[in-house]
Formats: sequence, structure tokens, C-alpha cells
Amino acid sequence: MKSVETRVRVRYAETDQMGVVYYANYLVWMEVGRVELCRACGFNYRDLEEREGILLAVAEANCRYAAPARYDDEVTIKAWVEEPHSKMMTFRYEMNVGDRRIATGFTRHVFLNRELRPARLPQKYLALFQ
Amino acid sequence: MKSVETRVRVRYAETDQMGVVYYANYLVWMEVGRVELCRACGFNYRDLEEREGILLAVAEANCRYAAPARYDDEVTIKAWVEEPHSKMMTFRYEMNVGDRRIATGFTRHVFLNRELRPARLPQKYLALFQ
Amino acid sequence: MKSVETRVRVRYAETDQMGVVYYANYLVWMEVGRVELCRACGFNYRDLEEREGILLAVAEANCRYAAPARYDDEVTIKAWVEEPHSKMMTFRYEMNVGDRRIATGFTRHVFLNRELRPARLPQKYLALFQ
Amino acid sequence: MKSVETRVRVRYAETDQMGVVYYANYLVWMEVGRVELCRACGFNYRDLEEREGILLAVAEANCRYAAPARYDDEVTIKAWVEEPHSKMMTFRYEMNVGDRRIATGFTRHVFLNRELRPARLPQKYLALFQ
Repeated sequence: MKSVETRVRVRYAETDQMGVVYYANYLVWMEVGRVELCRACGFNYRDLEEREGILLAVAEANCRYAAPARYDDEVTIKAWVEEPHSKMMTFRYEMNVGDRRIATGFTRHVFLNRELRPARLPQKYLALFQ
Repeated sequence: MKSVETRVRVRYAETDQMGVVYYANYLVWMEVGRVELCRACGFNYRDLEEREGILLAVAEANCRYAAPARYDDEVTIKAWVEEPHSKMMTFRYEMNVGDRRIATGFTRHVFLNRELRPARLPQKYLALFQ
Repeated sequence: MKSVETRVRVRYAETDQMGVVYYANYLVWMEVGRVELCRACGFNYRDLEEREGILLAVAEANCRYAAPARYDDEVTIKAWVEEPHSKMMTFRYEMNVGDRRIATGFTRHVFLNRELRPARLPQKYLALFQ
Repeated sequence: MKSVETRVRVRYAETDQMGVVYYANYLVWMEVGRVELCRACGFNYRDLEEREGILLAVAEANCRYAAPARYDDEVTIKAWVEEPHSKMMTFRYEMNVGDRRIATGFTRHVFLNRELRPARLPQKYLALFQ
């Protein structure tokens, strides 16, 4: 499967009083990695929503925190799809600061239509992840 | 004008590495105060959106920070409407931790319809703020 | 083990353009539930940090999303400790809107000192969760 | 005064159910612009905190919202210092999506030491903004 690396700079807003990044923000970075993976695979996630009316809803999210990320660190988010199906999809993530692994995780998604009912990802998109 | 006090407990997520609440989060608390003011005045802001198709868009936001708020503090948000008009409305806020003033601010709003075009707040809602 | 239920009202800030709560915010609610569980068990998490110099760092977080939460919903967060140890602790969470289950999850934690090195939770706190 | 332009891509996390960026997030973007202005002027804000023990606390924040920013938009944040003083400093911001002005604002800051008491910015930093 294709994988893509995206970089984000840690914002002050993302830190907490422990002096490290607050744990929920890693899920936001996963979103950033996921969207940039789509873009690198040849489509905008925004267009998927607007043109196809297909939403990528999260069914499960998991993050293992290996080492803290700190303010102003440059975090590299590696993202790839593990199991592309037309009804469900799992994205995996590795996050590093330089050579230091800070976190790994996954998000499991289902496709929904605008009424938030189950839908299928059109085949042309599925093929793009491989 | 009616005023309403709402309490929020400072979340760890809302602090930053300075050990105090990150400045953008005060605007979230203003939202909480504004919505509870509506509720106390007799209507749900959610219903205004869903039933009337009226959105309360922010045109300007201002906050003056007098003293830091800290993790686990209980913040009292006092909110009231300054100038209720059918096209624009200004909300004012005072935030305290116990007797200590931590911030004051205002938000200026315009009413929009679902297409994000200018709209008017029905008269029955306007009267409720007084 | 003791369990505690805490209520939060969904903020507009917590929704996204899908019209439901953004998935990372459930981890913030877990924090709220965790902290209120500590309070109900007889101690402030803030005091643990300030007086004992013990930090509750997150090693893993997991959330399964069963149904969407929407703006202005009142979410009940049930939290309890699964395995209280002096070096690690797992909290479990169930989140409901009325009778509808919206999410379940867990967070696994390690105790750290102020230098972010491994530490042990004093025995007197451990006993409080049971 | 020097000005610097920084680009951020709108995250899904930053949108709300109105389908546009939630208003508090513009203050986070101001932080991003402010920090990149410091970097372009020759110093890391992180170093200022760590080496000099000088914190840039926010005394006032203001934002005027001209047009909505939407998911996946690329926002250009232009930031510059208006009045550099050793005790206070005002940053100004203009935010655009392409040629469309979406917001303008300012943040007024005071310098604090690690005990959150008033401090002065060393002269060598002051000169860098001009």
C-alpha cells in the first residue's frame, strides 16, 4: 500500500500544563495524515464529501503514546491504508520527531452518505490507495 | 437586559505549557455562556438553527485577559446581550474564578440563513433577551 | 470498582462540518470523566500533581464510536478503573446520550514524576478507587 | 516593521456544524503566525521561554471575521509587530484564502517571567522585529 509522510509543527495550543502535547491532539494529526494520504493518492477528501456525498466516519480510534511531543517539535506523520474495502477502511499511523517514535495508532472508518446512513466507497477511489 | 451565569470546570485539555488556560479557549467559554443565556431566556439555540434556519455567525470577538485561569478552576461566565437587533447582536461576558475577575469580552454577531446569507432574527426571539 | 457518571453538554466548538462531534473530543470527555472519578473517590487530580508531583501520563487511548453525538446533547460519561496498580492504571469509559450508547473506550496510564520519569502512585490513592 | 506570511491548511477538526471554521480557531492561527514571525526575525519563541525564561502572555485578543474559511482551504496568515516595547507588544494579523480576506485581528501581550510576574523582553530581541 502507498504511504505518505506529512509534517506538522506542534502548536502552543496543542500543549498542556504537563509541558507536552495533550493526548487527544494526536487524533487531529492522524486526520491531517489521512487527508494528505488521500491527496497523494490522487483525490481531495473534500471533493469526496462534496461531489460524491460520501463521508468517512470514524468507528474506532487507537493511539499508543511512546514518547512525548513538545512545543515547536516538527512531527512527521506516516499514514497508510491497511485494508481498503468499499464499506470499511483502516488507516494506520506512525508519528516521529526526528528519529524518535512518539506514537503509533490506527483509525477504523465506515463510509456514510449525507444522511449518515451506510454507503460504499466508489471503486475508483478504492484502487487509488494501492 | 437579562444576564445569566454559567459554570465550567477548567479541563486539562484547555491548559497549555504555561500552566494556564490557552487564550483561545475563552472564546469557547463565551459560546457556552451565550448558549446558556439563550436557554435561560426561553429558547434553545439548537432549535433556532434547526427550526428557523437561523445561524448566529460571529462578526467580531474580543477578550481582555485580566488574570490566568488554571486547571480545575471553576469559572463563572456571566453573559448578557448589549444591543439586540434583528440583524446584529452583541453579547458581553465577564469571567470570574471565585471573586477574581479573569477576563471580560464581547462577541458581535450577524444572523445568517442556511446558505450563509444575511437574515433577520424573528421578533419573538428578540423580545426574550430583555 | 467504584464508577462515577459525569455529564457534559456538547459545545458548538466540539462539532465538525459533518454535524456531529469531532472524534478527538471524546478523549477530552474521557479526561473529564476520569478527573470526576478521582474527585468522587476522594482526591483532586490537581492535588496529586501539585502536592505529590505525580503525573498521570497516557500510554494508550482507545475509543469505539457507536452513534454520533450532536450539538447541545447532554452526554453522560461513566468512568471506572479496571486495574489499579501503583505503576500503571487503566480507566474504562461508557458514554451515552439518554439511553443511546454513543461510545466506549479506555485509557491506559503510567505514573510519572515532574521530570517525566516513571513513578509510583502512593498506596493511599490506590485504595481509593476500590 | 517586518511582516511574515505563514500558511495553514484548514483541518476538519477546526470546522463546526455550520460548515465553516469555528471562531476560536482563528486565535490559534494567530499563534502560528506570531511564532513564525519570531522565527523569521531570527529567534525561536521556544528558546525565549527556555533560555530567557520569558513568557509572552496574552493581555487582549481581537478578531474581525470578514468571510468564512472552509475545510481544506489554505489560509495565509500575515503577521507583524505594531509596537515593540520591552514590556508590551502588539501583533497584528491579516488572514486570507487566496485573494479573499477572511479575518483581521490583533493580540496584545505582556512579558512575564516563569513565576508569571511582569518582565522585560531583552533589547536584543526587540531590535529583531524592526
